[in-house]
Amino acid sequence: MYLNKNDIKNLDRIYRLNVINSITGIKPANLIGTVSGEGIENLAIFSSVVHLGSNPPLIGMFSRPDKEVRRHTLENIKSNEVYTINHVKKDHAKQAHYTSAKFDDDESEFEKCGFTPEYLEGYAAPFVKESSCKIGLGLRDLIPIRTNNTLLIVGEILHLIVPDEIVDEKGQFDLTKMEGTGVSGLNVYYGFEKINQFPYARKEELPEFKKSV
Amino acid sequence: MYLNKNDIKNLDRIYRLNVINSITGIKPANLIGTVSGEGIENLAIFSSVVHLGSNPPLIGMFSRPDKEVRRHTLENIKSNEVYTINHVKKDHAKQAHYTSAKFDDDESEFEKCGFTPEYLEGYAAPFVKESSCKIGLGLRDLIPIRTNNTLLIVGEILHLIVPDEIVDEKGQFDLTKMEGTGVSGLNVYYGFEKINQFPYARKEELPEFKKSV
Repeated sequence: MYLNKNDIKNLDRIYRLNVINSITGIKPANLIGTVSGEGIENLAIFSSVVHLGSNPPLIGMFSRPDKEVRRHTLENIKSNEVYTINHVKKDHAKQAHYTSAKFDDDESEFEKCGFTPEYLEGYAAPFVKESSCKIGLGLRDLIPIRTNNTLLIVGEILHLIVPDEIVDEKGQFDLTKMEGTGVSGLNVYYGFEKINQFPYARKEELPEFKKSV
Repeated sequence: MYLNKNDIKNLDRIYRLNVINSITGIKPANLIGTVSGEGIENLAIFSSVVHLGSNPPLIGMFSRPDKEVRRHTLENIKSNEVYTINHVKKDHAKQAHYTSAKFDDDESEFEKCGFTPEYLEGYAAPFVKESSCKIGLGLRDLIPIRTNNTLLIVGEILHLIVPDEIVDEKGQFDLTKMEGTGVSGLNVYYGFEKINQFPYARKEELPEFKKSV
């Protein structure tokens, strides 16, 4: 299948949504926990969470603007400046997916989708008790992407909770043991199997690679 | 394991790099193909490729600045304003990983790591022949992230090449059939197995979810 810019523009809308949401490859499935000024907890699945840097430890994620449609996650992050990122476990993929339904302002996805809010003392955003890796962030920047009117939300890690048994002595995670989940497109969920792990790549230690085509 | 902001700051540098690069979950493994003004092809593995929007079809990726150290990918994107994103297949994970070694200015990772450059007529950036999903982009914006002095590279899709057999009638990809690859942290590679796929989430069709904890 070959498509150029014009072909893509002329695709059926849903087909285009699926294709363009699939072409970056696997995406991480994370639940974003926030709370409104009125104390209503919100939980939403995001597949755009991305590592920005390790020192300071920064994470990015993307949101549409909240001008035309209410975006509870973005509104809550703006008003409290804290939010949590929680990995979705394989067994919770379906529940996590349904947090994307349009609930009313006074309904919490925690309750509707069977997740349990959990708090750290002195930190306002709810974590997901069922999650294996939980990150508490503080908002650092909201960067407008003018090309399509979206926003990059930049957060710094203030709290990090991970089970000891999935972190090795070098700080590397075992995503299989963690029962982690990835998404392709808008609604296809995947588990992981480790293929291999390689050392830091040095030119002097380069293996001899043969072309396969 | 619980770490707060201060604990993270005081971690050993390599351990911190591994932990903070792992905590966002699975990341897509993609090879970025570019060419310099002098015609030298460059290929580099990136795990920060992210979907930004479907109409116009935009993809983001992050780069450190090229002020202190030469970053061939960023330099080439700036000078030609075109670049390709190519999915890494499971069998090519090792070769792809080694594109991150520091080669000299006149050495091409295509040759050193056993990949074959491939061109579309009238488009200057090289695709990876061995890749299953190939995307040709045009640079649209370079957005500075001031919090840690990195850059968000925003590109629009001009060309898209995917094998027919991995795209279903709705435009959804089969990442297992595609033999796609994900990365955790800096050097652990994963393959995928499909768990499930769910319909567009509507509140009216919400299943009854029971809490598991």
